[in-house]
Amino acid sequence: MNCSIAQSLEVVGEWWSLLLIREAMLFGARRFGEFQEAIGIADNILAERLRKLVKRGVFERIPASKQARRGDYRLTEMGRALFPVVVALMQWGDRWIAGARRTPVKILVKGSHIELARIRVESKRGMALTPDDIVLVAGSGATAETRARFKPKI
Amino acid sequence: MNCSIAQSLEVVGEWWSLLLIREAMLFGARRFGEFQEAIGIADNILAERLRKLVKRGVFERIPASKQARRGDYRLTEMGRALFPVVVALMQWGDRWIAGARRTPVKILVKGSHIELARIRVESKRGMALTPDDIVLVAGSGATAETRARFKPKI
Repeated sequence: MNCSIAQSLEVVGEWWSLLLIREAMLFGARRFGEFQEAIGIADNILAERLRKLVKRGVFERIPASKQARRGDYRLTEMGRALFPVVVALMQWGDRWIAGARRTPVKILVKGSHIELARIRVESKRGMALTPDDIVLVAGSGATAETRARFKPKI
Repeated sequence: MNCSIAQSLEVVGEWWSLLLIREAMLFGARRFGEFQEAIGIADNILAERLRKLVKRGVFERIPASKQARRGDYRLTEMGRALFPVVVALMQWGDRWIAGARRTPVKILVKGSHIELARIRVESKRGMALTPDDIVLVAGSGATAETRARFKPKI
């Protein structure tokens, strides 16, 4: 589909993708066993899923040490760039599912008690935006179909 | 799982959830037929998926007009609150999958040529953060297990 959201979901759209990315990004998981402990699925399924995310460029495999039966997995730059997606999803769950007073886990700036700001959609001029404030136009990579759908109607 | 990311993924973790939310949020879809045209799945499957999202509180059903065979679907406040998640996912796809020069669709502030800022994770003091800059601590709704895992290590 000619849409970056659909394309992103093809890469990280399965629920377990973001759980594995969360483990690495927020909880520091690297070893196969750490992912397994956190996700609790069979060896072969986890291996297959990690392999898929390596293939898609989200994780990279680091050669195993002599002790380790399996290699470690590290987020690539592409994977780490999902940070705003992960935090936005967490904040949404905190607010709308857990409820503000029952936040399971809180993120702080390392070495401080400073909390994260709520992630906002803003214009380049710093104005906070809602879905009502925006309009979509065809981008430089739009197909003919997309161009027909999103005529520049500013 | 005692984690807002996991809980969020239980609600919107299937790839089609975010596609339907995208249709409503960015493209203004409301009628059953509009969702169907955009997603291209069978009537009964789409109906089931929309029903699921209504049950989860993301969409609400609006009574059908006399003409319409089916009701319309509108995002609830909870659904609209996924705006940062949707935009962050889109920006990630633009950058890492489509490539900056081949952006399919561009978001502008209505009535202007102003683009969106890149969504960032920031501290409450406005400092931009990476995954390396943060630490997790147990929140007020943490289970005993979560508390044991995330001892306040500031």
